[in-house]
Amino acid sequence: MATTPESVIPAAAGPRDWLTALGEGLSARVGEFVARRCDEQFTGRCEGALAVTALPEFVRGGKFLRSMFAYVGWCCGAPEDDAAVRAVASLELLHCFALAQDDVMDAADLRRGRPALHTQFARWHQDQGWSGSPARFGESAAILSGDLFLVWSEQMLRESGLPAATLSRGWPLYDAMRSELATGQLADLVNDARTVPSWLAVLDVLRRKSGNYTVRRPLELGAALAGSDARVSRALGVYGGLVGEAFQFRDDVLGVFGDPDVTGKPVGQDLRDRKASSVVALAVTMADTTLRRELERLLSREAVDDATVVAMRDAITASGAPDQLEKLIDKQVRRALDAIDSADVPARMAETLAVLAARCTERVR
Amino acid sequence: MATTPESVIPAAAGPRDWLTALGEGLSARVGEFVARRCDEQFTGRCEGALAVTALPEFVRGGKFLRSMFAYVGWCCGAPEDDAAVRAVASLELLHCFALAQDDVMDAADLRRGRPALHTQFARWHQDQGWSGSPARFGESAAILSGDLFLVWSEQMLRESGLPAATLSRGWPLYDAMRSELATGQLADLVNDARTVPSWLAVLDVLRRKSGNYTVRRPLELGAALAGSDARVSRALGVYGGLVGEAFQFRDDVLGVFGDPDVTGKPVGQDLRDRKASSVVALAVTMADTTLRRELERLLSREAVDDATVVAMRDAITASGAPDQLEKLIDKQVRRALDAIDSADVPARMAETLAVLAARCTERVR
Repeated sequence: MATTPESVIPAAAGPRDWLTALGEGLSARVGEFVARRCDEQFTGRCEGALAVTALPEFVRGGKFLRSMFAYVGWCCGAPEDDAAVRAVASLELLHCFALAQDDVMDAADLRRGRPALHTQFARWHQDQGWSGSPARFGESAAILSGDLFLVWSEQMLRESGLPAATLSRGWPLYDAMRSELATGQLADLVNDARTVPSWLAVLDVLRRKSGNYTVRRPLELGAALAGSDARVSRALGVYGGLVGEAFQFRDDVLGVFGDPDVTGKPVGQDLRDRKASSVVALAVTMADTTLRRELERLLSREAVDDATVVAMRDAITASGAPDQLEKLIDKQVRRALDAIDSADVPARMAETLAVLAARCTERVR
Repeated sequence: MATTPESVIPAAAGPRDWLTALGEGLSARVGEFVARRCDEQFTGRCEGALAVTALPEFVRGGKFLRSMFAYVGWCCGAPEDDAAVRAVASLELLHCFALAQDDVMDAADLRRGRPALHTQFARWHQDQGWSGSPARFGESAAILSGDLFLVWSEQMLRESGLPAATLSRGWPLYDAMRSELATGQLADLVNDARTVPSWLAVLDVLRRKSGNYTVRRPLELGAALAGSDARVSRALGVYGGLVGEAFQFRDDVLGVFGDPDVTGKPVGQDLRDRKASSVVALAVTMADTTLRRELERLLSREAVDDATVVAMRDAITASGAPDQLEKLIDKQVRRALDAIDSADVPARMAETLAVLAARCTERVR
């Protein structure tokens, strides 16, 4: 508990310092919780030899964005509270669950600048000289790690120290959030499987997977736990929906146009992975007949090589979709901050929400 | 609620009828719960078109063994209670989580006499004419279905209607159980990856995966929820450990020697899958030097064809391991029933536990 005082916000600091201190507090708490679980469940067990270091490390690498939004939601309705910090830290474990399993499903080998969990487990299998497929073993072990994160998240929330009556205000939102995470990923897989997904289908998944999960639900969960008044909760919901969507728009633009030196991913990764992303779907919607045919032709190619990526990027740019998305991002952030301004959100939290909105939408990686 | 009265046991019935009525009550409750969740989360959504029928169907196909043990545990310390039935029914969802994901990891295509969930989703993908690998899609969708079952299990337990104080006696056991399920499966994968696993390593996994998960933990959970006295809980724990192990010994014997017409699985399925099963590990331990070399040679073969299966079965029989396991099963069941007899377990529940022990260990599939 040494790393973070009862009140995580240093008295005179601005929102950026407060968020930094909060991030450290969250990381310490969730790291401690996971280390204890690993101790209980893996000590002296052969199968835990990698997990006992890989799982805590995986958890520590996060940005704690969802936990931060949830804690801001809490602070809109109640004083700072150490139990509340532990409660919202549980959302990072929910996120780890999603990442560990999504990386298997997307066959993504890198996560947070390190080998993905399934890659680490596969290498371990190989190093032991075991029989069977290392890749298959790695995938199974990462799925099981994700399961543990999912179990531990709920356990950490329940054992956070918040009174049962406080928690009971949060469970419906928490349940909705974690179910949506699984159904949203299923919807994402279905959209990826369609050659040319519709803008509306993409937008629907994006709302559930990011709009809701990254920003809106965490804010609402924090506000519900704190017992915030209905007007504030509604404003946070509006902000969350808008900023969450904008967050994903930025993600999708970076997935197509991001600088590989900054993102750490190959050029046009989302195009190579045939991700049903908003920028692609909007391009198809906005393109004229000729350009649309060209896009559809490129999107249905079996193999996506460098030349195809370049052609796709050119066609997407020509459609006007990237410019349109930039305008949409700006507009949504402005409307989100207006919603906060017009409700009775504490001034310090309104400032913090402005900083977080910028972080979600102005990032380059 | 029409299917099962407040008291699920018909007044004059013996343990078999009581268990049948209980099974129907459990199936009705869990089916209703899952149908409601599917309604909430999949109605009108393209990705839910299969899930909305496949998930409830998957749940209904179970034997509800874990829920039955938990309810017997409850009845050893408290009167019958509808909320308790709902609470223990949640264990079937935990089991569905394990089955859906284990089938992916084991690449098992059949479950409960029907195509496994991943196979159903793969066929659906194919029928839609979508792009990408149907098998890969099917596996991901089944993993996500498993995640939903895992989330829903905890939700169903929490929303069962048992008072918070009652539930709080159960959470530590419930958490241990679901974590053990994931770590036990990981240990199982590690054992399968070793060519010749040791008897002790196999026994350790078997205790966690079956001994604990199928019988012992459910009984202890039910007893803890009911606030049973310590002596009864201890006796249930002893019974659970012994019968759970014997259950898995029977499973392992059937996996090698089971009649394919009865089990619905190919001859020697566990040998083909290179499962690290108790009967194989015991055979290696009991064999003399010549036979052990022969067994190790067979176990390290790259491909397991019909002739190899026959040779393996002969070598295992020659080691004396199957006879030894039969004796062990008998002995463990006797010791389990002795433990129940010597504690203050209600007579009707003692009878029921004898019936359940026989069901776990005398089955032919």
